Amino acid sequence: MSDFKAILSNIYQNVSKTNDKGTVATYIPELADIDINNFGIHLRTVNGQHYGIGDFNKPFSIQSISKVLALSKAMELVGESIWKRVDVEPSGNPFNHLSLLEIENGIPRNPLINSGAIVIADILVSSLKNPKQDFLNYVRDITGDTTINFNEDVAYSEKITGFKNYAAANLLKSFNNLNNPVEEVLDFYFHQCSIEMSCEQLTNVFFFLANKGNCLLNKARLTKTQAKRINAIMLTCGFYDEAGEFAFEVGLPGKSGVGGGIVALLPDYFVITTWAPGLNKKGNSKLGMLTLEAFTTKTKLSVF
Amino acid sequence: MSDFKAILSNIYQNVSKTNDKGTVATYIPELADIDINNFGIHLRTVNGQHYGIGDFNKPFSIQSISKVLALSKAMELVGESIWKRVDVEPSGNPFNHLSLLEIENGIPRNPLINSGAIVIADILVSSLKNPKQDFLNYVRDITGDTTINFNEDVAYSEKITGFKNYAAANLLKSFNNLNNPVEEVLDFYFHQCSIEMSCEQLTNVFFFLANKGNCLLNKARLTKTQAKRINAIMLTCGFYDEAGEFAFEVGLPGKSGVGGGIVALLPDYFVITTWAPGLNKKGNSKLGMLTLEAFTTKTKLSVF
Amino acid sequence: MSDFKAILSNIYQNVSKTNDKGTVATYIPELADIDINNFGIHLRTVNGQHYGIGDFNKPFSIQSISKVLALSKAMELVGESIWKRVDVEPSGNPFNHLSLLEIENGIPRNPLINSGAIVIADILVSSLKNPKQDFLNYVRDITGDTTINFNEDVAYSEKITGFKNYAAANLLKSFNNLNNPVEEVLDFYFHQCSIEMSCEQLTNVFFFLANKGNCLLNKARLTKTQAKRINAIMLTCGFYDEAGEFAFEVGLPGKSGVGGGIVALLPDYFVITTWAPGLNKKGNSKLGMLTLEAFTTKTKLSVF
Amino acid sequence: MSDFKAILSNIYQNVSKTNDKGTVATYIPELADIDINNFGIHLRTVNGQHYGIGDFNKPFSIQSISKVLALSKAMELVGESIWKRVDVEPSGNPFNHLSLLEIENGIPRNPLINSGAIVIADILVSSLKNPKQDFLNYVRDITGDTTINFNEDVAYSEKITGFKNYAAANLLKSFNNLNNPVEEVLDFYFHQCSIEMSCEQLTNVFFFLANKGNCLLNKARLTKTQAKRINAIMLTCGFYDEAGEFAFEVGLPGKSGVGGGIVALLPDYFVITTWAPGLNKKGNSKLGMLTLEAFTTKTKLSVF
Repeated sequence: MSDFKAILSNIYQNVSKTNDKGTVATYIPELADIDINNFGIHLRTVNGQHYGIGDFNKPFSIQSISKVLALSKAMELVGESIWKRVDVEPSGNPFNHLSLLEIENGIPRNPLINSGAIVIADILVSSLKNPKQDFLNYVRDITGDTTINFNEDVAYSEKITGFKNYAAANLLKSFNNLNNPVEEVLDFYFHQCSIEMSCEQLTNVFFFLANKGNCLLNKARLTKTQAKRINAIMLTCGFYDEAGEFAFEVGLPGKSGVGGGIVALLPDYFVITTWAPGLNKKGNSKLGMLTLEAFTTKTKLSVF
Repeated sequence: MSDFKAILSNIYQNVSKTNDKGTVATYIPELADIDINNFGIHLRTVNGQHYGIGDFNKPFSIQSISKVLALSKAMELVGESIWKRVDVEPSGNPFNHLSLLEIENGIPRNPLINSGAIVIADILVSSLKNPKQDFLNYVRDITGDTTINFNEDVAYSEKITGFKNYAAANLLKSFNNLNNPVEEVLDFYFHQCSIEMSCEQLTNVFFFLANKGNCLLNKARLTKTQAKRINAIMLTCGFYDEAGEFAFEVGLPGKSGVGGGIVALLPDYFVITTWAPGLNKKGNSKLGMLTLEAFTTKTKLSVF
Repeated sequence: MSDFKAILSNIYQNVSKTNDKGTVATYIPELADIDINNFGIHLRTVNGQHYGIGDFNKPFSIQSISKVLALSKAMELVGESIWKRVDVEPSGNPFNHLSLLEIENGIPRNPLINSGAIVIADILVSSLKNPKQDFLNYVRDITGDTTINFNEDVAYSEKITGFKNYAAANLLKSFNNLNNPVEEVLDFYFHQCSIEMSCEQLTNVFFFLANKGNCLLNKARLTKTQAKRINAIMLTCGFYDEAGEFAFEVGLPGKSGVGGGIVALLPDYFVITTWAPGLNKKGNSKLGMLTLEAFTTKTKLSVF
Repeated sequence: MSDFKAILSNIYQNVSKTNDKGTVATYIPELADIDINNFGIHLRTVNGQHYGIGDFNKPFSIQSISKVLALSKAMELVGESIWKRVDVEPSGNPFNHLSLLEIENGIPRNPLINSGAIVIADILVSSLKNPKQDFLNYVRDITGDTTINFNEDVAYSEKITGFKNYAAANLLKSFNNLNNPVEEVLDFYFHQCSIEMSCEQLTNVFFFLANKGNCLLNKARLTKTQAKRINAIMLTCGFYDEAGEFAFEVGLPGKSGVGGGIVALLPDYFVITTWAPGLNKKGNSKLGMLTLEAFTTKTKLSVF
């Protein structure tokens, strides 16, 4: 672990100096206003060590990272029946997600693209009594951290600008792959994406996926097989159109969010979270990608 | 004209005997419940003769035929500026209209496919004081026929099942090609499509497009050039994925609707409307297509 | 006709002054080396008058215009059976012609896009004894003009650079929609496209399509119905992705070639050919388009 | 290892009993004629143990599995410059590979789909003195096994039926992403795919990818980083449109071939090869998939 500390500290210094930090997401004011200089890293090993640097305990909008937690809850609730409504294949090209949905008769390619995550949200809305509160409690309970919360401003901003998500949800509905009203599902979805956590909180919440399904509180959240499957989906589908690139350069299952967060993990070994709000052209955190590439290169630790 | 009478009467007899009348649209009860045996034809020549046979004065849901009238009103109101927001090219393949919209950055291929007609509806909502009433009045005024009306049940049924249209409208909105709220534009659009007319009423309303822009009441509705352009768009884009087939087999500008109506015209010569609610696989009236093919074959009258 | 002369003369003067004449095709040296200032027009009416201006009797590479003549010959030889192997629908978007071919199982959208023209070429190779010579003779015989010829240099240049055509032909072959060897079919196709004619020669050869199937030598080349159908296909598919635009702005059946030629016609009225080698962004002659727009605007003559 | 023996023996018994063994590839006689009842498994651990069962030392056509070896050789020869000509992203939908190539300007999605493998073949043709013989020697040298050979009949059959590969190669050429003549590149490519090996030979040849780049003869074939990258590409792109499914169900980097072979590996642990010529609907060996799913389920060994 002292090695990890030294390595991460060194990477942090180097990556911080990058001139081109990418571009902060601008489609909603809450993201547009974030200081691009934020940069944090937090790592926790399965054997209990942990280390943070920079803005690692400053909360940020986890956005699409939440899709993994929603998927996890849906797997717990309805098991394999999920896969009748959403596939597990990478999505390929970026510019025609709705087209794929049309051609493939309303079955989203995987649960980590927006249309797939909306189907998962629909499952949760159907299965939970008080969907938003119950899901929030689920996330809180994983680490017993009741400070985790929605950001209502973000949820509202997503709602009033989320036309592509409305398009996707309506298209799913036209294919009978959405059981609840579009408004209700998207209200849930926008709240889910608005959750705020710090690097440290994310690392801790995602710990169970690196630990055979058992969370930090030593409770089984998923079976080992389910955890393995979520990791497989993260590796093949977790980075939009850069999933292959991330597997190629980094080699860890992971998920990025447009808020600039990335969580990645090596099963049975560690979870690492980075946060830097500047994004590259494919929508993934620029400094985060650099950090994780450097980390797996230096440590020679990856699933490959 | 006595020739036309004899020819149409003969075609009507023959086509009526077709065993496979196609399939009535079933997505809303108001269309599903129509008797498939309805069949009417009405023709009017520019020189003033007219002739109807069968159910030619029974009102039906004009559906997509209304797109031509909306386009006509939009051309009157805002002229060439329409073409900044919608193209005039045929749409090609049927199964990925939303995809095309994505790839082409929110500019619909033409004003006669749904996404294009929604843009036209948006223009009318922006330009008219009381959009629905004003548009209805526009259609009524063309022939001075105040019995023409919306069918509110149809409009409501379209609204609660129109998820693909909501998907298209939201996608347009995401590309900044919709200025008004989705709900408002679609409320207008669903009403526009719900207008009911008989064959005779449609023939009379469309008369101005065959008559250099001048309507039956001898008033200029469009310039000659504008009428020509609408005719060109009907010919290349008026029949979904069967536009080429219709040009090839029939050779007239025309527009079909899912209610089973087809209006076609030969500039400077005649307008003909058919109604038979059974549709072929491409969504066009089966008996209507047969009628028009037979008519242009027998009369040797077409734009080609 | 004196009117036509005056109108065309006036248009020729005006259009000649256009500063931006577009760009000459550069993919083969024979086209790249053409002087962009060439500009000719020739018109012939069905009632026998004719008029040429500018470079109207200078031969140029007719390229894709030849597809209409190949289609005409194929219709003569095998009739309606053509339509089992090629459709008559516009092709829609430009950038994925091969994709459409894949999705639609090897049936080209229409006979005027390359893949469709290659299927027609395959039909001619199967049906003609000496395909290249017989086809050349067919074209010559239409007007009794034995000076019409292939340009072997052009055919060779097409062959060594025509990788997209090889791709299309092989894809057709993979779908069993090519009966002869790829090399043989493309050799025919490249020769067909290499034919050279002047505006006047083209006008005269295309005369039969405006004259109910009867050529200048007063011989039936096609039936009236077949001529009508070819005109319909030209109108809906004759101008790549600008077919709708051409119908909208000009309103005549026509066909353009990358050599800068355009033939257009009004059935029962006239044929007009323009040649100006500078192309617009969609691959159609820039001055040719301007000429034909001006001509139909001034004369008010179009199929609409 | 005694565990592995027992587990594999047990799986072999169970999987052998599967009634529906899929369908043998029929596009060339050499594959069509293979007995569907062939079934072999061979496993070798990094620490030196190995075990085979069934038809594990019967040679079969490795087909697309060869793409990994070609990629490996190309990485050795030209390093990172490969990635200017081919990407590392999963390919998404199956039915329009050529379309993707068109839309993405001739850059194949990854080196394990046909178009990408053809680009790799082009690199090898450019870089090797006697491409076919040198590549065969490369494969032989990895384990010192000079019995490995091309099957000339297979190569010839591929050549005369490989129209889709000719289409892809010509399309690449049209985008200037093929430096050598199509015929030459495809001759190499068809030979590469025609190589025959048994399960045991494949396991041994692929050993270096599980062993940080060092082959069984203890020679560095690639750097550890290069081996990692190939493994990443196999995991995300190795199974056509079932890549996500394989990662999800099996969780190992691997590559399948239409001859019915599958090689999969756990870095630093083992390589396993299965062969059973019956394919599932997505073109992967049916019994092979069942075997590998069972194996990783029972052993709990996967990269996740």
